[in-house]
Amino acid sequence: MEPCVGARRDPGQSGGASLAGSSFGTLFRITTAGESHGVGNVVIIDGCPPGIPLSVEDLRHDLERRRPGQSHLVSQRKEPDEAELLSGVFEGRTTGTSIAILVRNQDARSRDYAALASLYRPGHADYTYEARYGLRDPRGGGRASARETVSRVAAGVVAKKLIAEAFGGEVLAYVTQIGPIRASIERPVQAEAIERLPSGEPNLVRCPDPAAAAQMRALIEAVRKDQDSIGGVAEIVARGVPAGLGDPVFDKLSADLAKALMSIPAVKGIEVGAGFGVAELRGSECNDIFVRDEGGVRTETNRHGGLLGGISSGMPILLRAAIKPTSSLPREQRTIDREGSATVVRTKGRHDPCLLPRFVPVAEAMVALVLADHWLRLRALGHRA
Amino acid sequence: MEPCVGARRDPGQSGGASLAGSSFGTLFRITTAGESHGVGNVVIIDGCPPGIPLSVEDLRHDLERRRPGQSHLVSQRKEPDEAELLSGVFEGRTTGTSIAILVRNQDARSRDYAALASLYRPGHADYTYEARYGLRDPRGGGRASARETVSRVAAGVVAKKLIAEAFGGEVLAYVTQIGPIRASIERPVQAEAIERLPSGEPNLVRCPDPAAAAQMRALIEAVRKDQDSIGGVAEIVARGVPAGLGDPVFDKLSADLAKALMSIPAVKGIEVGAGFGVAELRGSECNDIFVRDEGGVRTETNRHGGLLGGISSGMPILLRAAIKPTSSLPREQRTIDREGSATVVRTKGRHDPCLLPRFVPVAEAMVALVLADHWLRLRALGHRA
Amino acid sequence: MEPCVGARRDPGQSGGASLAGSSFGTLFRITTAGESHGVGNVVIIDGCPPGIPLSVEDLRHDLERRRPGQSHLVSQRKEPDEAELLSGVFEGRTTGTSIAILVRNQDARSRDYAALASLYRPGHADYTYEARYGLRDPRGGGRASARETVSRVAAGVVAKKLIAEAFGGEVLAYVTQIGPIRASIERPVQAEAIERLPSGEPNLVRCPDPAAAAQMRALIEAVRKDQDSIGGVAEIVARGVPAGLGDPVFDKLSADLAKALMSIPAVKGIEVGAGFGVAELRGSECNDIFVRDEGGVRTETNRHGGLLGGISSGMPILLRAAIKPTSSLPREQRTIDREGSATVVRTKGRHDPCLLPRFVPVAEAMVALVLADHWLRLRALGHRA
Amino acid sequence: MEPCVGARRDPGQSGGASLAGSSFGTLFRITTAGESHGVGNVVIIDGCPPGIPLSVEDLRHDLERRRPGQSHLVSQRKEPDEAELLSGVFEGRTTGTSIAILVRNQDARSRDYAALASLYRPGHADYTYEARYGLRDPRGGGRASARETVSRVAAGVVAKKLIAEAFGGEVLAYVTQIGPIRASIERPVQAEAIERLPSGEPNLVRCPDPAAAAQMRALIEAVRKDQDSIGGVAEIVARGVPAGLGDPVFDKLSADLAKALMSIPAVKGIEVGAGFGVAELRGSECNDIFVRDEGGVRTETNRHGGLLGGISSGMPILLRAAIKPTSSLPREQRTIDREGSATVVRTKGRHDPCLLPRFVPVAEAMVALVLADHWLRLRALGHRA
Repeated sequence: MEPCVGARRDPGQSGGASLAGSSFGTLFRITTAGESHGVGNVVIIDGCPPGIPLSVEDLRHDLERRRPGQSHLVSQRKEPDEAELLSGVFEGRTTGTSIAILVRNQDARSRDYAALASLYRPGHADYTYEARYGLRDPRGGGRASARETVSRVAAGVVAKKLIAEAFGGEVLAYVTQIGPIRASIERPVQAEAIERLPSGEPNLVRCPDPAAAAQMRALIEAVRKDQDSIGGVAEIVARGVPAGLGDPVFDKLSADLAKALMSIPAVKGIEVGAGFGVAELRGSECNDIFVRDEGGVRTETNRHGGLLGGISSGMPILLRAAIKPTSSLPREQRTIDREGSATVVRTKGRHDPCLLPRFVPVAEAMVALVLADHWLRLRALGHRA
Repeated sequence: MEPCVGARRDPGQSGGASLAGSSFGTLFRITTAGESHGVGNVVIIDGCPPGIPLSVEDLRHDLERRRPGQSHLVSQRKEPDEAELLSGVFEGRTTGTSIAILVRNQDARSRDYAALASLYRPGHADYTYEARYGLRDPRGGGRASARETVSRVAAGVVAKKLIAEAFGGEVLAYVTQIGPIRASIERPVQAEAIERLPSGEPNLVRCPDPAAAAQMRALIEAVRKDQDSIGGVAEIVARGVPAGLGDPVFDKLSADLAKALMSIPAVKGIEVGAGFGVAELRGSECNDIFVRDEGGVRTETNRHGGLLGGISSGMPILLRAAIKPTSSLPREQRTIDREGSATVVRTKGRHDPCLLPRFVPVAEAMVALVLADHWLRLRALGHRA
Repeated sequence: MEPCVGARRDPGQSGGASLAGSSFGTLFRITTAGESHGVGNVVIIDGCPPGIPLSVEDLRHDLERRRPGQSHLVSQRKEPDEAELLSGVFEGRTTGTSIAILVRNQDARSRDYAALASLYRPGHADYTYEARYGLRDPRGGGRASARETVSRVAAGVVAKKLIAEAFGGEVLAYVTQIGPIRASIERPVQAEAIERLPSGEPNLVRCPDPAAAAQMRALIEAVRKDQDSIGGVAEIVARGVPAGLGDPVFDKLSADLAKALMSIPAVKGIEVGAGFGVAELRGSECNDIFVRDEGGVRTETNRHGGLLGGISSGMPILLRAAIKPTSSLPREQRTIDREGSATVVRTKGRHDPCLLPRFVPVAEAMVALVLADHWLRLRALGHRA
Repeated sequence: MEPCVGARRDPGQSGGASLAGSSFGTLFRITTAGESHGVGNVVIIDGCPPGIPLSVEDLRHDLERRRPGQSHLVSQRKEPDEAELLSGVFEGRTTGTSIAILVRNQDARSRDYAALASLYRPGHADYTYEARYGLRDPRGGGRASARETVSRVAAGVVAKKLIAEAFGGEVLAYVTQIGPIRASIERPVQAEAIERLPSGEPNLVRCPDPAAAAQMRALIEAVRKDQDSIGGVAEIVARGVPAGLGDPVFDKLSADLAKALMSIPAVKGIEVGAGFGVAELRGSECNDIFVRDEGGVRTETNRHGGLLGGISSGMPILLRAAIKPTSSLPREQRTIDREGSATVVRTKGRHDPCLLPRFVPVAEAMVALVLADHWLRLRALGHRA
């Protein structure tokens, strides 16, 4: 790691800046607002085509998958996360106008966080946020909390419906690694295998390899008992995506997918197809050979992860994301306060010992949003898939 | 890898779509045009503040670093890459209005590519580009060619000048891995060590570890003789960046950096700080501890890579990118033509056996562009660093 | 008028299109959602700097000015228009993150509109909206209703606070013409004179010329009795705006102001400064002469309306907008239904006989939003006014 | 006019700001660069669909119509305005990638302007531009010169080709008023009548009413002899535009058209349909009645100017713009210099005594650009006209 020499900022200094960074997408665009412990989180989805069936019920499944308190493996914060559909739907169908969805915060025990207001939790955005804005809402991380991902998931449901209807597209994410435990993934992965074990029990870690899932579960429990947390890797696959999505220069589909995933809290690495593995390959090993069969053009292998020149190839889009261990720990960690004095912090709030299980629906949502947007962009110029 | 089942597209089908994807950035924004074998490449830089000294001479150094034909390790295409400054500068200084830079193509032997017009080169965007647009400029890959990066590098020079003047920021990239050879990086890396070996000779592979650099050079030469190509990893460090750059949700600095790097041709993976290494870490190992010394707030370690909650922390920003081996090979590869018939392709044009050395200035440019943009965004709301 | 020859569209044909058009502004950006008779209207304000005092109370004054049912001169729809502040404020101050404001619909008698679902009201967007989307929410005009301006006004309050704090800026609008009655405007107009008559009574028409105001009021009452409606002109002045706001080419301050005003329902004309009067002037009559006195640079006259080359000159910004008479009439009008058959329509809902009085706060809001946005854009590059 | 009380700025103060304001459009987007007396003007058109025939020859007609020196009625600056097509076209057709067009400046006698560098020309952007940027390129107005409209016209040619191919759309502009002389317009106006008189001679003022055209010509000549200039009004009609273009809230087609026209130098007023005339109308007089005949849905009259609720109705789109008299005068005008001292200025360069004739192709271009953009936006969501 680079030694600690860099630009610094006096911690007592008052900053003060902002910028319109709460929107994502160009044609299928979402804009969000809301903090961890404020009134609630709201998302406006603008650019959704008319005629798509949509109801509050449609939102429930993924919101439930993202919800804290699903099991002892994740944060115990209890929130039913009931969505309210404020606009954009008439007689059960989207009208083509902006859709607003509100999820109120219910169980926000901000008393847990009062002591944290004047210090910088390691691994969190407390310090950087304060450097940017000069002040911060200390209740549960405020806007920097992962609570905002509830809006991503709600909007992702609409995006999933659009891509399913438009081209039969499907996005699935699942856990492939937690700590040192790596799953063995048999493709294609089935949606069912992500949520349920062969026994019928809920697949709490959302890893489709049952043996690895059991080990991962045991590891997370051990880590939790140890007042610690653990990182991991998730894979996201988008199937049924036609060839031709993505622009050839800056707005490559791959580039927008990388941004989408890296914008999710705690993500520190992104791979497409063979990912970092390409570094050791020769061209003659890395290139995927084009063939044509009754189904059309495809490649014999898929090291390119469904993205060539940044444009979808019609092969499954394969992405991986590395997620760091939860920064909040129920054990004591050294840090400093706003005045620069050394202190310690120990998080008493409810936190996940491992972010991976709840990362899954968020990652699916972000990938679906990118695909919905690029689908509309493709269609803008007369594409007929 | 996912088995080859996915949406497909009939190869004879005429598509037809596009979209404004040639711009990058919000306030410091570049827009590019140009193909590999057309008249030339042009970039318009909009949003550059007034008063920054700028001349054609300033552009030369990085354009030369990116230029093909620098050594036998890279493409032998000969192009002086002389830039012409069309606007936005008066009496040697930027005026605050849009700056246009034109680099004409000089040595475009498009005859080399005529045979490739009707088939799909493995690993290239020929097929995907045709799926998107229904037609393509087959001369050297057209717009999908890495030739477009000349515009990125030219614009990056202006961004580098802005961030140097604004906050003493500096961006350096260098090669850390080629094939199985991994360099040992002693930080902080010096700009000089990237370009020159201790002997004073040019550091052709741009790896600051001289021993590894020698091995890498030998490997690239061997690969070239073998009519093959090889991948690698580059690291990019941005130093002197103040805390507070980046928005907390979608326009995280980390997210925009990921998009910036993933938009460069051949990139298949991105890491921030400890990257995929975080998957195996516990929170107590991964969190960087805040301390304060005479220089201000810093962290004892930098596993976060200078980015916390997507906002710069004042620590060096550390990124890594995985680059695939050159897809064009001077050996025969199987593929299909536009009608779907099996055929073979062997690239006769001039191509790099390894993209890494020339990737370095392009990566620096993209990171500098993101920093310049976010700096202006920070300043928009009254920030005083 | 151009004779009625043009592209047409079969009325029974199902269309279907949309697009992300619910956002306004670049750095100070608002995004809205909501229909006339849905759950409510919500606006997300993104890019507001931190530290600005903001509460629900601040929103009340302008929401009340825009509210229907204030007097018998405007729509009798009763809605308290209570705003709920969902996010972006902590301890009474903006945090720099996105601010969401929700105004629920209270008195939405959609039964009034049921009969209108299958026909095209003259002057309304029923037909064009259906041509665009293939379907429409017929309840009160849905998204095309002026009900959406409640979000503009709420966001405008925040913009007004920002420009007041940033540079002492103030935006005032007032009525200058209704039907044939033209006011005589003595400048500078005082905020008080827009809301109150010299007698202390409310100035129902918001015209600062009391004599004209009385005539206008009588005209509106006569028109209402006549089951008709009447158009007018409003003037908007922005004072205290420093020189230098606006870009010199496409994003001229004048161009963005024109878009802002033309986006308000019923506006059919826009003037800056001398407006259409310039057509009859010679250059020697039209040019405003620069002088300098103790206050700095100014012009002797202000035919340029505070905007030169699209950039603010420091002189008061003067705009005028022409507003058409309300399209909904309580008298019978001929039209056709969706099948193209001739029919008649008579609006039974509550509608304003004249839109001008309620246009005033909406116009102020839109102008304030443009100024807030351009102020941040100016500040992005280091401006110090 | 508002008396001269407002925010002021010390003229000696150094400012310094900018912002990316050189782009126009969302999906069909142009970005321009270039000054009056720099190397040249360049435009990048991004988002143009593939397959449209395009050559340098196509650009000539409108560039020639915009060109200075066409007659003694306009500026005598001689520039052939030869365009160079730098990218985006292969074998005579657009490829879907960004199209760059360069028009070099040929006859830029910047010696004419040297004396103007330290003073503020009345009616020009010298002062405001300096307030914004702290410095300016004084050669011919630099970026604020109308010279930049050469890029608009070049891009407009491509937009015209797109809308003609996509929906048979046509945009025509013509002069309806110069000074007090108002033409009598017989609709529909023919393209031929704008360029040629019934006698076959060139219609130098581009007014389709031959009698008025003769008077206008005489007036302009008189004004020129008088070392003065004169304003006027132009009308722009777009025919063949299908119903459904435009978003219902902020991105109304009417709003984007207003911005497009107001961004053209010297425009001070905009009208849609009946324009300011609506102020005097009652609803029963103003509403256009829908009817249906063999051609589909239309309105009996077109006071709405083809735009209802901001969305195109299928009727001809009717716009008018007021253009101020040329600010540069060959007679002495009072002003101040940068230090605030009173001085006089007399423009010796070549300037138009009336901007209207050359405004015509620029206005057509801007309207065509908006229509092309909104057409793609409409198509993004699956519209089938």
